[in-house]
Amino acid sequence: MVESTAKVPAAAPIAMIDAIPLSGMASPAAARLFAAMKRIDAPSLESSVGELRAYYGVLDRRRAEEMRRRFPVDIEVGSTGGVPVKIVTPREGVSSANAGRVLINLHGGAFMWGGEYGGLVESIPIAALGGFTVVAVDYRQAPEHVHPAASEDVAAVYAELLDSYTAKSIGIYGCSAGGVLTAQAIVEFTHMGLPMPGALGTFCGTGLEFGGDSPHLAALTTRSSKFPKGEVRLGALPYFGGAAADDYRVFPLVSDDWARRFPPTLMIAGGRDFAASSLTLGHRRLASVDCDSRLFLFDGLWHAFFADPELPESGEAYDLICRFFLECLG
Amino acid sequence: MVESTAKVPAAAPIAMIDAIPLSGMASPAAARLFAAMKRIDAPSLESSVGELRAYYGVLDRRRAEEMRRRFPVDIEVGSTGGVPVKIVTPREGVSSANAGRVLINLHGGAFMWGGEYGGLVESIPIAALGGFTVVAVDYRQAPEHVHPAASEDVAAVYAELLDSYTAKSIGIYGCSAGGVLTAQAIVEFTHMGLPMPGALGTFCGTGLEFGGDSPHLAALTTRSSKFPKGEVRLGALPYFGGAAADDYRVFPLVSDDWARRFPPTLMIAGGRDFAASSLTLGHRRLASVDCDSRLFLFDGLWHAFFADPELPESGEAYDLICRFFLECLG
Repeated sequence: MVESTAKVPAAAPIAMIDAIPLSGMASPAAARLFAAMKRIDAPSLESSVGELRAYYGVLDRRRAEEMRRRFPVDIEVGSTGGVPVKIVTPREGVSSANAGRVLINLHGGAFMWGGEYGGLVESIPIAALGGFTVVAVDYRQAPEHVHPAASEDVAAVYAELLDSYTAKSIGIYGCSAGGVLTAQAIVEFTHMGLPMPGALGTFCGTGLEFGGDSPHLAALTTRSSKFPKGEVRLGALPYFGGAAADDYRVFPLVSDDWARRFPPTLMIAGGRDFAASSLTLGHRRLASVDCDSRLFLFDGLWHAFFADPELPESGEAYDLICRFFLECLG
Repeated sequence: MVESTAKVPAAAPIAMIDAIPLSGMASPAAARLFAAMKRIDAPSLESSVGELRAYYGVLDRRRAEEMRRRFPVDIEVGSTGGVPVKIVTPREGVSSANAGRVLINLHGGAFMWGGEYGGLVESIPIAALGGFTVVAVDYRQAPEHVHPAASEDVAAVYAELLDSYTAKSIGIYGCSAGGVLTAQAIVEFTHMGLPMPGALGTFCGTGLEFGGDSPHLAALTTRSSKFPKGEVRLGALPYFGGAAADDYRVFPLVSDDWARRFPPTLMIAGGRDFAASSLTLGHRRLASVDCDSRLFLFDGLWHAFFADPELPESGEAYDLICRFFLECLG
């Protein structure tokens, strides 16, 4: 497969990109996967939503199957608060520590795809390894729906779970678009008068617009058509339709007043992730208002790397996530 | 002043470096200083030790004067445990919360310079803003001395302070070489049978060899002769004389057993710092053995950026450091 160079910025010759070897801090398995990813011809964000959903639907289904092979879970398809969900529980049963707790997973997929299998990819390892019940939410997406439809769905699920769980015993996490949506939940819950949850995980995306050095460095270092090249703006996604970077309803961490409402928050990204700078800045914002925020970057790794369970780094990320919720939930 | 291009790797044309604009997440003051730094013709690490000490001696003296103008402190020159120190105390007096506490500062300077004024630059803002007594240690350096002479000096100071303070009420921090030396103190204290201190701050350097993506990205983004280009190895410094990256005596965070001995540890670096990857990996290592480790990266900023107090990011870093020691020391 010949890689198109059309999307590489003129200032970044291919020779330059290859002049930055993969971090020696990445595992051999990550180095092999990285080399293989360079040959993948994934559709770009400019492709039609049909193409994107078809491509990622196949990829996520394969990943979800691989997750089920590795991590024994039961999956119940249903609805919570009128919103379609998949409830993932460990085959060995929820651990006694987590009997009164539940996690809500908000899948990634640029607010366009990921509803069918993406949530399973993110939920299965955490349910099995952490002994948690995880409710994976199939929230409304673009182009059929726009902001804040997904937040409304998250709040509907959360409100129904509050009938069975205390707020402090509910954790919410997500990757990429799901990390952004997790942060936005704080705004939606506040507007609805709901109590704050016990802990959040915003991975590869958080309550800030993308920006800083990361999108540039990602374009230089992750030479797969799978990743956006150059400028990447959440506000420009069909779901947000041009939201400004200082709009707290979309990016609550622009505001100290909104940051103060955040419960303990875990942030994880790859060091080459175009979202990494938004996490390092969001983490500083939360710390500056005395929020218990924790940041982990995996050197050399890329956006949403832990969707691939064969990497030892993915196991390390699952462990960080499970231990965080075990420690922080009431 | 015409900048030499000789030290820029062949694969990184100047046009490429300028194609990465400074992070939009950096403050306007940082953007101005960054532009000015590009025109600075500082000696490289390959210069003679005389040149390096002369250059950084002038720079550090100017910075120390600027720190004194901004942050009112008293400075007492003396010796502790037979090692020359400067004891920095806030002009307004040590805060009541910190009356039974002391901080040890280990200055940066590639284990070659920084003894006279570098420690003051790092100590004055923390003493004044945090209300701390800070003991800035003028430890032995290369080429006159080699590893572990500096660690022995740190241990001698620490041992004498243990006559007046409990171990848990002593914090140790340093930037660059000083961050590395701070981590190495854990090995030296263990070998001497001394109890572990209450908290550490390893900034722009920690208990791991440099490596990963950061040295490459730093070479692409920080186009000042002030910063090393391409590969940067601590082990190759005259002080270490070829130490291997897996030598726990020099890089204790290669080992889980050594990582477990670390008290709560704060790590801070610029996102463009060639040391950033060593911090993100060291932070993961500490977290994996359940150490209370905290990581902050300042997007767009460079190695040891908070030596310049005019940046708002420096004030944010001082605040993180002061609050960390206030929270973690006994």
